[in-house]
Amino acid sequence: MLPDRSFFNRLAEAAKAETLPRFRSGLDVTNKLSSGFDPVTEGDRAAEAAIRKLIEEHFPNHGILGEEHGDVGLDRDYVWIIDPIDGTRAFISGVPVWGTLIGLQKNGRAIMGMIEQPFTGERYFADQNGSTYSGPEGERRLKTRDCGTLSNAILFTTSPHLFTGLEMEKYREIERQVRLFRYGTDCYAYALLAAGHVDLVIENGLKPYDVGGIIPVIENAGGIITTWDGGRPENGGSIIAAGSRAVYDQALAILQR
Amino acid sequence: MLPDRSFFNRLAEAAKAETLPRFRSGLDVTNKLSSGFDPVTEGDRAAEAAIRKLIEEHFPNHGILGEEHGDVGLDRDYVWIIDPIDGTRAFISGVPVWGTLIGLQKNGRAIMGMIEQPFTGERYFADQNGSTYSGPEGERRLKTRDCGTLSNAILFTTSPHLFTGLEMEKYREIERQVRLFRYGTDCYAYALLAAGHVDLVIENGLKPYDVGGIIPVIENAGGIITTWDGGRPENGGSIIAAGSRAVYDQALAILQR
Repeated sequence: MLPDRSFFNRLAEAAKAETLPRFRSGLDVTNKLSSGFDPVTEGDRAAEAAIRKLIEEHFPNHGILGEEHGDVGLDRDYVWIIDPIDGTRAFISGVPVWGTLIGLQKNGRAIMGMIEQPFTGERYFADQNGSTYSGPEGERRLKTRDCGTLSNAILFTTSPHLFTGLEMEKYREIERQVRLFRYGTDCYAYALLAAGHVDLVIENGLKPYDVGGIIPVIENAGGIITTWDGGRPENGGSIIAAGSRAVYDQALAILQR
Repeated sequence: MLPDRSFFNRLAEAAKAETLPRFRSGLDVTNKLSSGFDPVTEGDRAAEAAIRKLIEEHFPNHGILGEEHGDVGLDRDYVWIIDPIDGTRAFISGVPVWGTLIGLQKNGRAIMGMIEQPFTGERYFADQNGSTYSGPEGERRLKTRDCGTLSNAILFTTSPHLFTGLEMEKYREIERQVRLFRYGTDCYAYALLAAGHVDLVIENGLKPYDVGGIIPVIENAGGIITTWDGGRPENGGSIIAAGSRAVYDQALAILQR
């Protein structure tokens, strides 16, 4: 038996109970890596634990890949991919563009996913029936948009500082060509792309849990998400997501120069 | 008679009725300036008109300085400063960090103000009694925080691309010293500073209407907001806002090199 939307909702609610009370609470942060700033909050760990508990209870034969706790059964047919707080910098800065990402893979392929933003009350969910939104604007199907050409596109990335060398040159070339670009949106950028508000997200250095919950939401809304070399995105790395084939092709041509 | 909080709430509600239905509506944008991208939405114009109508009805002797429509009576004792949608790029990108800014000046000095974010339902208001927040987290007094030193600070700016030359060098020096920096938050950065979630906002090229509603919210929450040369911020320009004197002094020393 496969999980359904209501089970994903339960996972999101369990995570929310751990994350939202800690958002803007003035909590201390610890540094996960001594090199660079990678804060992990108690909320991060507690939310993942809450999600894993429900999965282990209802789907004991499934594997789990999480950001915070150890991996379990990654060779199983079904594997859950969890990022309890994607966008920890946004979280500790009080900006509600972080999210809880929950994905399910079948034989290595993302098939269901959810992007949850508890503060705004937005939930982006996808299964084989499509992608749906629920939030302040009500409930509706998600559909990416086709802005026609790169020069009409709105581009998002988390921070230009993450690119170096040749990647930076390629990124800057795309930035020069688009209509508008913005920084600092983390996973929220992919949610807005699935909803047809923006056209392009380009990032690098992503982990599998950064994209696991996102892939189905974008693909089942009509969008495209791959690595910069056009391959499947499940393993993360350098990622491009686009609302339409036309914009994707134009941007990918620059990334592959 | 001076306006009170409930009158500011009425202004915010009137603006919200024009802005929120147009947010994420797939609206077209027009370019206000042929040079550069400065979108103005119908919502921008309609919200300002709605605000002005209420002000003219209840405070006919007050002046009004707005972003979208002409200025009236700027030499009067009381002058309203209106930015119906601060952060138009965020607005057209679907990111809820834009805001409606409403300020009141007495003899050129900001004395009351409001930052309204309709999508998240957050409202930051200030008068002589202090700064207050109402939103998903309930109602509470706003108080900036003192992170002690620049190296502990979280810094926000709208985009590093707005700085050039010497301003860019100074900005980058501060960016190098802080604990964490983020881009793309527009007026929301000042709201988060007033609420004690972040410590420093540094921007340039601001217009009077970009800061009119913000100044009292920050000052009455215990923060400091001035120009880069330490003067009053009412006329905009290059602006620094800090949650504490210590961080302000350290950052200002770099800006004044």
